[in-house]
Amino acid sequence: MGSADRLERWESRSEWALAAVAVVFLAVYSIQVLTTPDRGVTNLLNGVMSLLYLVFVVDYVVRLTLAPQRARWFFRHLLDLAIVVLPFLRPLRLLRLVVLVKVLHRAGGDAIRGRVAAYTAGSAILLVYVASLAMLETERNAPDSTITNFGTAVWWSITTVTTVGYGDTYPVTGAGRVIAVLLMIGGISLIGVITATVASWIVERVSEEDTASRAATAAQIDDLRDEIRQLSVQLSDRESAREESWSSR
Amino acid sequence: MGSADRLERWESRSEWALAAVAVVFLAVYSIQVLTTPDRGVTNLLNGVMSLLYLVFVVDYVVRLTLAPQRARWFFRHLLDLAIVVLPFLRPLRLLRLVVLVKVLHRAGGDAIRGRVAAYTAGSAILLVYVASLAMLETERNAPDSTITNFGTAVWWSITTVTTVGYGDTYPVTGAGRVIAVLLMIGGISLIGVITATVASWIVERVSEEDTASRAATAAQIDDLRDEIRQLSVQLSDRESAREESWSSR
Amino acid sequence: MGSADRLERWESRSEWALAAVAVVFLAVYSIQVLTTPDRGVTNLLNGVMSLLYLVFVVDYVVRLTLAPQRARWFFRHLLDLAIVVLPFLRPLRLLRLVVLVKVLHRAGGDAIRGRVAAYTAGSAILLVYVASLAMLETERNAPDSTITNFGTAVWWSITTVTTVGYGDTYPVTGAGRVIAVLLMIGGISLIGVITATVASWIVERVSEEDTASRAATAAQIDDLRDEIRQLSVQLSDRESAREESWSSR
Amino acid sequence: MGSADRLERWESRSEWALAAVAVVFLAVYSIQVLTTPDRGVTNLLNGVMSLLYLVFVVDYVVRLTLAPQRARWFFRHLLDLAIVVLPFLRPLRLLRLVVLVKVLHRAGGDAIRGRVAAYTAGSAILLVYVASLAMLETERNAPDSTITNFGTAVWWSITTVTTVGYGDTYPVTGAGRVIAVLLMIGGISLIGVITATVASWIVERVSEEDTASRAATAAQIDDLRDEIRQLSVQLSDRESAREESWSSR
Repeated sequence: MGSADRLERWESRSEWALAAVAVVFLAVYSIQVLTTPDRGVTNLLNGVMSLLYLVFVVDYVVRLTLAPQRARWFFRHLLDLAIVVLPFLRPLRLLRLVVLVKVLHRAGGDAIRGRVAAYTAGSAILLVYVASLAMLETERNAPDSTITNFGTAVWWSITTVTTVGYGDTYPVTGAGRVIAVLLMIGGISLIGVITATVASWIVERVSEEDTASRAATAAQIDDLRDEIRQLSVQLSDRESAREESWSSR
Repeated sequence: MGSADRLERWESRSEWALAAVAVVFLAVYSIQVLTTPDRGVTNLLNGVMSLLYLVFVVDYVVRLTLAPQRARWFFRHLLDLAIVVLPFLRPLRLLRLVVLVKVLHRAGGDAIRGRVAAYTAGSAILLVYVASLAMLETERNAPDSTITNFGTAVWWSITTVTTVGYGDTYPVTGAGRVIAVLLMIGGISLIGVITATVASWIVERVSEEDTASRAATAAQIDDLRDEIRQLSVQLSDRESAREESWSSR
Repeated sequence: MGSADRLERWESRSEWALAAVAVVFLAVYSIQVLTTPDRGVTNLLNGVMSLLYLVFVVDYVVRLTLAPQRARWFFRHLLDLAIVVLPFLRPLRLLRLVVLVKVLHRAGGDAIRGRVAAYTAGSAILLVYVASLAMLETERNAPDSTITNFGTAVWWSITTVTTVGYGDTYPVTGAGRVIAVLLMIGGISLIGVITATVASWIVERVSEEDTASRAATAAQIDDLRDEIRQLSVQLSDRESAREESWSSR
Repeated sequence: MGSADRLERWESRSEWALAAVAVVFLAVYSIQVLTTPDRGVTNLLNGVMSLLYLVFVVDYVVRLTLAPQRARWFFRHLLDLAIVVLPFLRPLRLLRLVVLVKVLHRAGGDAIRGRVAAYTAGSAILLVYVASLAMLETERNAPDSTITNFGTAVWWSITTVTTVGYGDTYPVTGAGRVIAVLLMIGGISLIGVITATVASWIVERVSEEDTASRAATAAQIDDLRDEIRQLSVQLSDRESAREESWSSR
């Protein structure tokens, strides 16, 4: 069995386990940021966090080991390394939650647009929640900070993700600005996806309106082919019939 | 008759009645927010509001009773419950006005794009008006509020819905921020719809430009099928003719 | 000749004359706003403005008179009336310049997308220029105004039309806010048109990429029909040939 | 050999050389803006800059000389002249770097959408970096400036390019505002490209979903034509066979 297969198998097997780890991570992270737990709980949470951290490190090392071309894999997965190594990029470990969108597959039904809508809504909510948590943790104690409680952090996240940007709240620290930039990129993508989904719906409706401008579909072409085949069969049947009539004479 | 049918029939019958209730609700709400009526009128308006409220409650209870799978219906319509129960979400009762867009059907004519444009314009105006009313009611008496009269509320609504967001006016209360978030989501959707409508128009025009790149239409395929059928008829006619000439010999 | 034809003929004949009037209007308006002319020039400019105003009034009255169903025309052209009557909406008289986009027809070449791009660029520049003039005139002397010179007015226009909206400059008067709202609507439409044009280009490129996914074109269907016709001709030729061979025997 | 050919050949040959010059220009410009080099290094950098400047001037003069219709070329390339002559537009010399996107051709692979994504990401990063440099140089020493270090300049660039526009940082000088306007135009285009790419992907996916609504492809039409041709061949084969059987009798 090739090494590439082993990497692939590891990834498909560990996918859900890592998603579960990410969910626990999100829960612990939320508690750490949103509550002021007493010393004992804090120690417990820190312990859990260290364990979860270990899982991510182990996963990274295993994948690097299984990769057929290690140097190439290493350079292609520098972001993975950064997420594991830099405490600053800790919230990005939640990218593992991407696997959860598979659950949304069913929620959105069979239609592509339904699924895209479910993904978009799910991603938007997760994005805003995580960005608010990370921003609150980062900005809370900064001097001149405008984001000092969770409500305001969510408010800031939403004005940013929709690109409204009133400017009543904004990050003042470097780390906060990096989080904001990631959120803005997410926001632009979300707007793009919404517009695109609506556009595809309108384009389809317009083309359904009258036959004269409706696009020819593959189904129609298939029908046409059937008719041509019948014509061919018809032709060859009559030929045989005539040949028989010839020979019988 | 199935229970699902009964629910459906109730909904189609009560649709316009509830829209009328929503119109009255909008009128009373406007008077309450925009004017400072004397005590008598205030009591009258509050009475009307309570009556309208009762209509919404009755509608909710009836629909819950008629639903074939009540538990499922309950969880799928949590928003409906929230709108009825939470005084805070009162303006959302105006969602009933959605039925009025059916009137716009005729205004937009037969073309899909005309109808989408009419819906969009109608929804945008209603959205901005209601958001302004709700925002003014919520923020008017808040300390440090920047939205203290209807003109400013409308100005804030439009800078928000277009995602311009100068930041000269913005909500400062929690309730005001929830209204703002709903308005932003509406604003992004509006931009998406406008872009999508223009895109569909341009795509169509571009494809109309020259035959070489114009998409094959269903009408053309139908023409093609007709020709193949004629060919088939022609073939079978001549065969019969020949057979006759054979037998006549 | 029907009255509707007369109205149409008047409109097509007066189109360019009114555009010329609008150009003069724009020039005089620019001078009035941007310079501080002495008393004599001011009187002259006011005189010219009154004359131009008369032209718009005459055009409105003529069109109303020529309209076959005057009451219907009146209600469908309330905006035209408002533009003529309300001094406040004076800049909207420049809508007449729309006819100038016909000149851009040639600049954009034959292709639809080229023409759309030329229209968009032309409209954007005119929109920003006129909005800046109107805003400067309106806000210049308002207390607490942030827009007091033409450079700042242009800066405000562009941050608004792109929906960036920093909030360092914004209108404070009611009239200024109405101008801003019109500009925002224009800005959203511009973004929509840009996105849509790019989208149509990408969709076309993607479909050109490989035959397997390229859409069937009308030209291909035409080719197909030709082949079927040839088949039909071939069939009928041979039949005739055989019949001749029969009869000649 | 025509003069137009000579111009074209010059442009294709000098393309990469000018891109190299632009890279050096970018490096020197970055050092000048981001560091405070001592007097000796400053003189050296100024010298290099003058040399690079000479290259741009020479290129402009050569192209003007080679142009078949010099007057026409001159008016069609006024921007090129402005970039060479006005020190203010110095950063626009980096437009030469556009040729580097050819390198991205390979990074994006064969697919149109991959290439568009690679172009967009590359252009966005370059645009934000250069705008930040230019803005920092322009605003750094202005009174009341809000952009006084590179981090803040990048932060401003990104809030502008995504059209969020908090308004915590914004240009206050005329030159800074011109740079901002160029960046906004770039930002809107980027959003347009992102939306359009997503839209084209969704439209394709939706049409792939079921045969009934999938668009007829050129490949299907080709298959159809093959069948018709076979039918035609079949027809003519049998005819010949029969004719032979006739003549052999």
